[in-house]
Amino acid sequence: MGEFKENEIQKLSQDELKKLLKSVRGQLASKQQIIKEKKLPVIVLVEGWGASGKGTLISYLIRDLDPRFFKVIPVKPPTKEEKRKTFLCRHMENIPENGKFVFLDSGWMEETVFDMVDGKFSDDELKKRFHDINIFERQLVDNGYLVLKVFVDVSKENQKSRIDNLLSDKDTSWRVSKRDLDEIKNRKKYENAFSSFIGATNTKKAPWHVIDSSKKELAELQVYHLLVNGIDNAIRQKCEPVDIPDNVFPLVTMPKLKDVPLDVSLTREEYKTKLKDAQKKLKNLHNKIYRAGIPVIIAYEGWDAAGKGGNIKRLTSALDARGFEVQPIASPDIHEKNRHYLWRFYTRLPKTGHIAIFDRTWYGRVMVERLEGFCSENDWKRAYNEINEFEKSLSDWGAVIVKFWIHIDKDTQLSRFKEREQTPEKQWKITDEDWRNREKWDDYEIAVDEMIAKTSTSFAPWHIIQSNDKLYARIQAINTVIDAIEAKLKEPKKD
Amino acid sequence: MGEFKENEIQKLSQDELKKLLKSVRGQLASKQQIIKEKKLPVIVLVEGWGASGKGTLISYLIRDLDPRFFKVIPVKPPTKEEKRKTFLCRHMENIPENGKFVFLDSGWMEETVFDMVDGKFSDDELKKRFHDINIFERQLVDNGYLVLKVFVDVSKENQKSRIDNLLSDKDTSWRVSKRDLDEIKNRKKYENAFSSFIGATNTKKAPWHVIDSSKKELAELQVYHLLVNGIDNAIRQKCEPVDIPDNVFPLVTMPKLKDVPLDVSLTREEYKTKLKDAQKKLKNLHNKIYRAGIPVIIAYEGWDAAGKGGNIKRLTSALDARGFEVQPIASPDIHEKNRHYLWRFYTRLPKTGHIAIFDRTWYGRVMVERLEGFCSENDWKRAYNEINEFEKSLSDWGAVIVKFWIHIDKDTQLSRFKEREQTPEKQWKITDEDWRNREKWDDYEIAVDEMIAKTSTSFAPWHIIQSNDKLYARIQAINTVIDAIEAKLKEPKKD
Repeated sequence: MGEFKENEIQKLSQDELKKLLKSVRGQLASKQQIIKEKKLPVIVLVEGWGASGKGTLISYLIRDLDPRFFKVIPVKPPTKEEKRKTFLCRHMENIPENGKFVFLDSGWMEETVFDMVDGKFSDDELKKRFHDINIFERQLVDNGYLVLKVFVDVSKENQKSRIDNLLSDKDTSWRVSKRDLDEIKNRKKYENAFSSFIGATNTKKAPWHVIDSSKKELAELQVYHLLVNGIDNAIRQKCEPVDIPDNVFPLVTMPKLKDVPLDVSLTREEYKTKLKDAQKKLKNLHNKIYRAGIPVIIAYEGWDAAGKGGNIKRLTSALDARGFEVQPIASPDIHEKNRHYLWRFYTRLPKTGHIAIFDRTWYGRVMVERLEGFCSENDWKRAYNEINEFEKSLSDWGAVIVKFWIHIDKDTQLSRFKEREQTPEKQWKITDEDWRNREKWDDYEIAVDEMIAKTSTSFAPWHIIQSNDKLYARIQAINTVIDAIEAKLKEPKKD
Repeated sequence: MGEFKENEIQKLSQDELKKLLKSVRGQLASKQQIIKEKKLPVIVLVEGWGASGKGTLISYLIRDLDPRFFKVIPVKPPTKEEKRKTFLCRHMENIPENGKFVFLDSGWMEETVFDMVDGKFSDDELKKRFHDINIFERQLVDNGYLVLKVFVDVSKENQKSRIDNLLSDKDTSWRVSKRDLDEIKNRKKYENAFSSFIGATNTKKAPWHVIDSSKKELAELQVYHLLVNGIDNAIRQKCEPVDIPDNVFPLVTMPKLKDVPLDVSLTREEYKTKLKDAQKKLKNLHNKIYRAGIPVIIAYEGWDAAGKGGNIKRLTSALDARGFEVQPIASPDIHEKNRHYLWRFYTRLPKTGHIAIFDRTWYGRVMVERLEGFCSENDWKRAYNEINEFEKSLSDWGAVIVKFWIHIDKDTQLSRFKEREQTPEKQWKITDEDWRNREKWDDYEIAVDEMIAKTSTSFAPWHIIQSNDKLYARIQAINTVIDAIEAKLKEPKKD
């Protein structure tokens, strides 16, 4: 469509403008097919003043699009339930699948700006919020999303006359919210909040575009232009590798797997006593974190036949069934595969006061996906940092994060595989895939060592659980969870 | 496990009881594998008095189960958002996949009983609620679910002492709710409500089991017994055909497809004028239903290449993007395939005031699933009634339901297929599957005629849209939606 020269367009007559608009709209419609082919997911975030015409703008944008390929999501203030999850959860839930558009009628900006105006942030909290948003957007872009952010601007006079107009008709007056009126009344306050939000989140990968809504056709034309060009750019850049930043997180030094001694065990008697004690303690702590509203995330990874299942069972049987969930993670289904790889974990995070236990996790990215070539080298190399960022934001939210590598040696795996094959009620537990994975033991060991080295942060460290003796491993795991929760409960409270 | 003889068990010593309990618990654990193999989904609904020990009971039941195969769901009072959906939506959402358990810590009984006690139902509404619940449970059972309903009973004295006990310790006092205290205070009222609920929903396919919680071990033993026997029975009955009831719904007489004339058309000029008028009207109505809180469900079915997509687009471009959703229905993903076939539609229903447009629908059951053998003959023959029940409950909820069969003749399909093959930007629209389906035209026509005859109810009639001329079809569809909404708006209001 060539360059968008505002000066020249300003000179066009209304008729010429309409003609131009029609042609650009056609171009956007024809991009749909390309988006689908190239599997490009597109997020159009439309933020702006109340009554600035955000809804109308979106209605125009979608006019010629096939409704099967886009979704308009009106984002409301978070509900009580949504407030029990981390801020980004509900926004992450809305991201589109590959090859589809999502138009957000306000999103993480409005929510944040309203809280700013209402004085809900300390300086540090606000900084952290901006930081989280920048990471969120950058991760989306790095993982192939086009994130187009539009701020619909309107002058105070214009906003007021629009609102008066809406109020004058009973068919439209219900559309005016208290917040809209407050924006007029405290214009300066909102202006400052919007500006400082835009300033803090105007990044190269996801820049802001401020659109003046006073001339409707011009505003539409601008956004069409942004979209068409944005899509072209995104497709051009899709296959280019993304920069991998240096690690900025505090790491805990961890041993290599081969250096972890596995000759530790418990007698059944010792086990019974210790299990009873540990479960009692954990049960009591579960009660405490529930009341304190602390979310707990327990991540299980480990070799096949290392005893993950039994380990998880001993942990959960100490817990009140209403306060935890086990999330078994299999290969992603089609809707999951077509989104950012962390999407299916965001949607499974615990709410405050609850425990989520992941039976396999987001670390699949740097293990099976790396080794089987399900993602590019750039993808999995970038993932260490992305995952550290993900876990940091959860930790900042207040979550306890405990990550287990359930460890056994190769001989132990072999004897357990054989036992499974020979025991009728265990045969379902052993598949050809297990044997195939076993052949790749050495490759996995390299990947796991690298993963543990690069993602054992002080706020979400790995714990290598010695599981040649399953009884020993179970006690070790429960006690690790107990220690982590107790440490969190001892932290000084924020408010 | 043989028969459960309460008399004999009453005589057992505490030690003997514990031993028996352990063995039954083991039996349940070993059923897990069978459940998985036989793909049996199990719902255990645990209802009962406040502080009667429901949570403890569930914790005991799951003690030896593999956490990957069950989920405990604490069901809270519905949120504001949930109240904007039909009553059954959130309960339907909780049903398990094949081969898994769900334990519900209270569910549709508690929600209903509390509303009964609070005087929220008229007699008719309450009757309807019971009716909906009975249909819901029957449909689950008919579609292969084991629905085990347990009511945990406790005497007034016992409940009071349990509550006093909880209150006496600050670590547990927060567990006592206002509702619990109200149950003590107004015991009789709750007793009546519980009894009449049990009386009205105690069906052969999903009977109630009242458990006396005063003796904990005995109560546990009873529930284990119910579960183990229930699973055995359900597996035995799994392959038996289910009775197909006679139609009880008011049907509208519909023509056969072959008798619908297709030689109707509009000039482009006529189309333009009519489209503009109709879209304006619809836009206005969208506003009205939003304010009146009326949900609208528009279901599109039709021949391949009949023009569904373009038809939907003309409809949606008249609507405010924030108030509708298009739901494209492809073949079910694995989580959908593993549940009741209506599950994925329940989760996509509109909330009050919104429009949901389904591009293909639940009628797949009696078309593609019937013809391709994806379900049994008994399944699809039963589906006509199940679908009528589903739509009736939506209609009673207040929804407008409009169902379209977009109709063309076989020659028109052929020329459109060919045109698609010859037009580069349309080639993605035509696949081998389309050609294969075309070969089955006659079988489909039989199935569609039967479907339309059996599910054109007065509350959710089919509309056959004559789409040899797409322009004519678009106007016809929009006007049908307009008529349906206008009719609903003219109905006398309930409250």
